[in-house]
Amino acid sequence: MRFTHETLPQRVVFAPGDAATAVAAEVTALGGARVMLIASAREAALATRIAAAVPVVLHHDEVVMHVPVEVAERAREAAAAAGVDVIVTVGGGSATGLGKAVALTSDRPGGLPILAVPTTYAGSEATNVWGLTQGATKTTGVDDSVLPRSIVYDATLLSSLPAQLSVASGLNALAHCIDAMWGPRVDPIDQVLAGEGIRRLAGGLPVIAREGPLVEGIEQTLYGAYLAAVAFASAGSGMHHKICHVLGGMFNLPHAQTHAVVLPHVLAFNAPHAPEAERRIAAALDSSAAVEGLAQLRAAVDAPRALRDYGMPEEGIARAVGPVLAAVPPSNPAPVTEHNLTALLRAAWEGDPS
Amino acid sequence: MRFTHETLPQRVVFAPGDAATAVAAEVTALGGARVMLIASAREAALATRIAAAVPVVLHHDEVVMHVPVEVAERAREAAAAAGVDVIVTVGGGSATGLGKAVALTSDRPGGLPILAVPTTYAGSEATNVWGLTQGATKTTGVDDSVLPRSIVYDATLLSSLPAQLSVASGLNALAHCIDAMWGPRVDPIDQVLAGEGIRRLAGGLPVIAREGPLVEGIEQTLYGAYLAAVAFASAGSGMHHKICHVLGGMFNLPHAQTHAVVLPHVLAFNAPHAPEAERRIAAALDSSAAVEGLAQLRAAVDAPRALRDYGMPEEGIARAVGPVLAAVPPSNPAPVTEHNLTALLRAAWEGDPS
Repeated sequence: MRFTHETLPQRVVFAPGDAATAVAAEVTALGGARVMLIASAREAALATRIAAAVPVVLHHDEVVMHVPVEVAERAREAAAAAGVDVIVTVGGGSATGLGKAVALTSDRPGGLPILAVPTTYAGSEATNVWGLTQGATKTTGVDDSVLPRSIVYDATLLSSLPAQLSVASGLNALAHCIDAMWGPRVDPIDQVLAGEGIRRLAGGLPVIAREGPLVEGIEQTLYGAYLAAVAFASAGSGMHHKICHVLGGMFNLPHAQTHAVVLPHVLAFNAPHAPEAERRIAAALDSSAAVEGLAQLRAAVDAPRALRDYGMPEEGIARAVGPVLAAVPPSNPAPVTEHNLTALLRAAWEGDPS
Repeated sequence: MRFTHETLPQRVVFAPGDAATAVAAEVTALGGARVMLIASAREAALATRIAAAVPVVLHHDEVVMHVPVEVAERAREAAAAAGVDVIVTVGGGSATGLGKAVALTSDRPGGLPILAVPTTYAGSEATNVWGLTQGATKTTGVDDSVLPRSIVYDATLLSSLPAQLSVASGLNALAHCIDAMWGPRVDPIDQVLAGEGIRRLAGGLPVIAREGPLVEGIEQTLYGAYLAAVAFASAGSGMHHKICHVLGGMFNLPHAQTHAVVLPHVLAFNAPHAPEAERRIAAALDSSAAVEGLAQLRAAVDAPRALRDYGMPEEGIARAVGPVLAAVPPSNPAPVTEHNLTALLRAAWEGDPS
């Protein structure tokens, strides 16, 4: 047992139905007197309601996917001009990401704290990873100053997310947990958190799929997605995320669906070579074997099945093999070859039979 | 699901056999140029070896149990006179506790970081709790500035701890996990960490009891004791610790043994009223029921069985009831009465039949 684990400081508040009260308390705890509220125009009414008791001096609503550098620059200038001391983000990964971009370059002594109020299962609020896009190139980095100091999770904020989108996004969080199990920096603490994340997602997602986005299913899924992000940020990207990143970039595939399709194939590929991870995943899925457990969960939520359904061309399989081979971490449990990787990608393209 | 969880920042390094190398790396990471080394005279040779590659300007060896205020004051004066910038503690709870006392009152900007190198399973290194004793009165408090920034766990440092003492200390850590399950501030994250702590302690302790203090058993026990302390510090003292605190103070009973004896009685008392905790404890002990799982583990390690074996007088049962009743958290899962508490204490005094 030889590892180093870095636990990052963060307050997490689960307060279903009480976002406004919890946000006011957290802003006070952070000493916020001049708050920058970041939320897209689409979330404006919600954000205003949540921040009703907070001293907002700047409401910034230019929120763009993948955080283009020019969007970040405008947000930074607005924050500096207004002299803000706390950032409150309301939204998904794009709103959180913009908050991180502003905090990253702040020269305020002690940093510019972020309070994140997520409205999706993306998980960015629980990581120290930032991303910026210049033209077609996305740059990501790690900096502890961008980790939100506080998160307020209010399950009722996600009840208008359609069930199918919730399931796809929750399966994306499940991929964070499973890929964390063999991430390049994985340690036993990451595995415990990822295991509990799987357990919660496997509890919440079938409820959402069956009964719609009710609070009971959402709060389990939200908690699972939080644990997924913590574990994944610590363990680092494994084989699964490398495959999805290459395929997504090459063929412009939808993010969450790509993850949902590829995941069972990577699990089947790695499980025989990662007995400890396999045991933990199986236990968390309440199954005797990880692969069967995931198949049952996928059936229960009617998960996406084939990359060809999302526009990937068949000849893309051969094109993707090289870049994926180059990206898979050397520590991946199963040895990866051109041959077995081609078979994996073909299976994901054709779709699993379940 | 409604809770607030505060995750505190800490780096944890598990490096069996490599304490000296890991300590040097961590001191460098903390920017230490003038190190205060705290270790009792008994640990002097070990501490000197571990800190060989570290710029020690002050070796302080006045380490006293429960950290008397005058001992703390002398350590603070020595630290200030030497202008130290990092504290390295080598030892058990008393050495860590003295380091915390020095850090607590430091006026160094940014605080005085502690690197703890534990040589027992006490767990103080993973908490933000400090304690000081004036005469017969112990004062404890919580302050994030006393949480060690970094811990180096080297299982080989605990291999000279006799097996029986290791088991008693490990059962004390187990009590942290079990009592955390219903602590007054417990949340689902504490329960996950406590559950994994139980799993590891239940893995390591029988190995130590059976084969002696070999590295394999020690590292599981050490990791379990770390998780126990993290969970317990977050969840707060439950009924078990209140009982042990009262009995220990009244009858001067040995700490670890008192915990080991009382634990199964509190578990049996609370388990029927705490189904989620019961399920988690049972699963972690790989048993269908928590009470049976603990009984099996206790049998495997030949755990202490009766308070009367450690000098508690029979008439003490009646005397302890009042103070314990006053101390048990109102949130305790099972309702506590004079009647059922007397029965519990009598059972612990007489000893369980297993």
